[in-house]
Amino acid sequence: MADNKNLINRRGFFRKAAAVSVTALSGKSLLANELAEKGDPAIMHHTKWGQKWGDPVSVNLYGMPSAYEHNVTRRNTKLLASGNFRASIAVTPIHESQGIITPNGLFFSRSHGGTAHVDPNEYRLMIHGLVEKPIVLTLAELKRYPSVTRTHFIECPANGGQEWRGPQFNSVQFAKGFMSSAEWTGVYIKTILEDLGLKPTAQWMLAEGSDNSKMGRTIPVDKVLDDAMIVWGQNGEALRPEQGYPARLLVPGWEGNLCVKWLRRLEFSQEPWYCKEETSKYTDLKPTGKAIQHFYANEVNSTVTSPSPEIPWTDLKDGDVVEIEGLAWSGMGTITAVDLSFDGGKNYVKANLKGLVLSKSWTRWSYMHAYKKGEKLLLTSRAIDDAGYIQPTIDQEIGVMGVEAVYHRNAVETWEVTEEGKVNHVQIRSI
Amino acid sequence: MADNKNLINRRGFFRKAAAVSVTALSGKSLLANELAEKGDPAIMHHTKWGQKWGDPVSVNLYGMPSAYEHNVTRRNTKLLASGNFRASIAVTPIHESQGIITPNGLFFSRSHGGTAHVDPNEYRLMIHGLVEKPIVLTLAELKRYPSVTRTHFIECPANGGQEWRGPQFNSVQFAKGFMSSAEWTGVYIKTILEDLGLKPTAQWMLAEGSDNSKMGRTIPVDKVLDDAMIVWGQNGEALRPEQGYPARLLVPGWEGNLCVKWLRRLEFSQEPWYCKEETSKYTDLKPTGKAIQHFYANEVNSTVTSPSPEIPWTDLKDGDVVEIEGLAWSGMGTITAVDLSFDGGKNYVKANLKGLVLSKSWTRWSYMHAYKKGEKLLLTSRAIDDAGYIQPTIDQEIGVMGVEAVYHRNAVETWEVTEEGKVNHVQIRSI
Repeated sequence: MADNKNLINRRGFFRKAAAVSVTALSGKSLLANELAEKGDPAIMHHTKWGQKWGDPVSVNLYGMPSAYEHNVTRRNTKLLASGNFRASIAVTPIHESQGIITPNGLFFSRSHGGTAHVDPNEYRLMIHGLVEKPIVLTLAELKRYPSVTRTHFIECPANGGQEWRGPQFNSVQFAKGFMSSAEWTGVYIKTILEDLGLKPTAQWMLAEGSDNSKMGRTIPVDKVLDDAMIVWGQNGEALRPEQGYPARLLVPGWEGNLCVKWLRRLEFSQEPWYCKEETSKYTDLKPTGKAIQHFYANEVNSTVTSPSPEIPWTDLKDGDVVEIEGLAWSGMGTITAVDLSFDGGKNYVKANLKGLVLSKSWTRWSYMHAYKKGEKLLLTSRAIDDAGYIQPTIDQEIGVMGVEAVYHRNAVETWEVTEEGKVNHVQIRSI
Repeated sequence: MADNKNLINRRGFFRKAAAVSVTALSGKSLLANELAEKGDPAIMHHTKWGQKWGDPVSVNLYGMPSAYEHNVTRRNTKLLASGNFRASIAVTPIHESQGIITPNGLFFSRSHGGTAHVDPNEYRLMIHGLVEKPIVLTLAELKRYPSVTRTHFIECPANGGQEWRGPQFNSVQFAKGFMSSAEWTGVYIKTILEDLGLKPTAQWMLAEGSDNSKMGRTIPVDKVLDDAMIVWGQNGEALRPEQGYPARLLVPGWEGNLCVKWLRRLEFSQEPWYCKEETSKYTDLKPTGKAIQHFYANEVNSTVTSPSPEIPWTDLKDGDVVEIEGLAWSGMGTITAVDLSFDGGKNYVKANLKGLVLSKSWTRWSYMHAYKKGEKLLLTSRAIDDAGYIQPTIDQEIGVMGVEAVYHRNAVETWEVTEEGKVNHVQIRSI
């Protein structure tokens, strides 16, 4: 385990890093360093891309990533979801993520009937039931309400849900990539309801999609009036088709499937609905044989993202200083701390929270570590939120839930670093 | 001009908005509203996209916008920059922007020799000159430094620079879209210099690109040590090729051309360089015949983005309540206030700042307005930053600079709303 006290001294740390940078260079780079010492930039002048004109700006008016990044994509597998690629999921390469924005091209995508392609001119949203003035809005009318912009994650409650009995995927993308984070623009539903008038008897809201699956979910009115939004913008542009273009529900911090895409209808009522996707799915079977329903929040959670099976430490040398990075998030508030263990959860040190720390948003954390060649580690992260919750151990969670549940698994995750620097997803049980 | 006091009362405002929403509906939608009043969702069930399977998730592992959004792209014209599409610029559709993130596909792009396609395995960065330990870094070595994530705009100092003598473009995209905003991930150069050791005689840093143009710019060491970064991540993924993949300089709040792309070399020295792009260009000719050099910050600025020539009010009806939106930004700090005028700058009211307000970052502002059919407006916005600066009038700015300068024009912009609701870019001179 790292002696982080020494590393906190920046001068001390950077002296170590300097030694690394030089010794890690290839033969060619060592030559380059000799030239650098002479102050001779000639070594920098022979790249093939610098010898010719680049592309005109006109060839790329809406851009794509470098071809060298072809490996950084969403991924899917028949093992996930329903076994076909329409009622399925494509998960985000969170090991390659940076900051707290997931670009729209990589935002995880879950649909129950495939991606619908909605004509915005034909789009209508009906809001009715227990409201004084039921209405059907065009997209232009919807967008005329005062807009707000908020940064929130969306997480499928099945994130990590394959892992109750132990790791199924030796991949952080497949194990924990059922989530992404974005800057959303839209209107608070409470704003629209101040216009339409919500009847006092209203206790629940049905949200229904216009796609082939007619996805329907029920949400308590208290949450709707707190912070639920109808959003049309994501990361500064229109929603992508696979995110529900032209408008979807956003229920910050709660199950991603509540964020109904291609949204066509909101209906307010006294009683909850029992739609297909909140009875046959998105309920959790307990050992008693009864299932938990009406439990919506994605509780406090975290994972290491680097190192990971996708980003091993096999190229590190003894003494290399490396940044252990990860994500923490809570659907119930703001992350206040992340602990990191090198021994699978027996002992913890405090990690550093990086960048913006926002409510119901990804929070990035890191820890500088001096790698010892051949060391074996069990990296476990544990997040704490301002609602007072801390991630449970898998023993604690299985003690309550058994192993028949699918959703809302937020026990700590452990990543084994082998003597060779390979990384494996493991589960630490003490029972 | 709007009586905003009445609108500030939310109930009062939304009663107005309600009347708008209903009366603005088409004949078909009025039928839909009758069905909505009966609580009959049948009207919502006949969309063509809901009658068939959508696309499988596997067809779109890296996504693109809806085909219906084909008109939302960067744009270019031979009128901009050098008259060819390699030493040219493609500007951002800021009228369609939302929040403070520009998606990578729409981030404005300026290059002097076209977009280079750099092989990240062959990428090298030399840091030399007045440092104790000159070095050549591979990309992996560069990324091993402790990273930070910051949200900043980049603005070409020529943003609005065609407009000294009056509006050239009746378009907010072409007139003010030489800028975008993103969440950047990389390393502070001061962090690297703590490793390499900066010699006390160093006063300037040369940054040089590896592309065909070998773009070179000089930056004072004080700014380098304050907040300059080498960035490899933009909005949660690798930089796009047109943004300098795999690594560029980021000089927060200063001229965009200092943010050298495809960065290959940083050299520290006692004296400034006089590169082509800081002598023949990026200097401002004054009426005296002398040019201003070594002036780098993009000063406090703002514009209305909606309404705009691209988003007119021709479809609004008398009494419609509409959100006037815009952007404000300052390269010298944080936006503290935005004023909005309806009469071309004679009288101002306070606009509302929306969402996150960050240093050297786009700040979004808005103002709710009750539209009166046939009204003629001159919408002028004026931003103030925490460095104590306020946007000048064009009279004030021309008084100092004349009309031969190109860069750093930050006078207030005015957008005329005609009786028909069309929007024109105009310039209000009192002299």
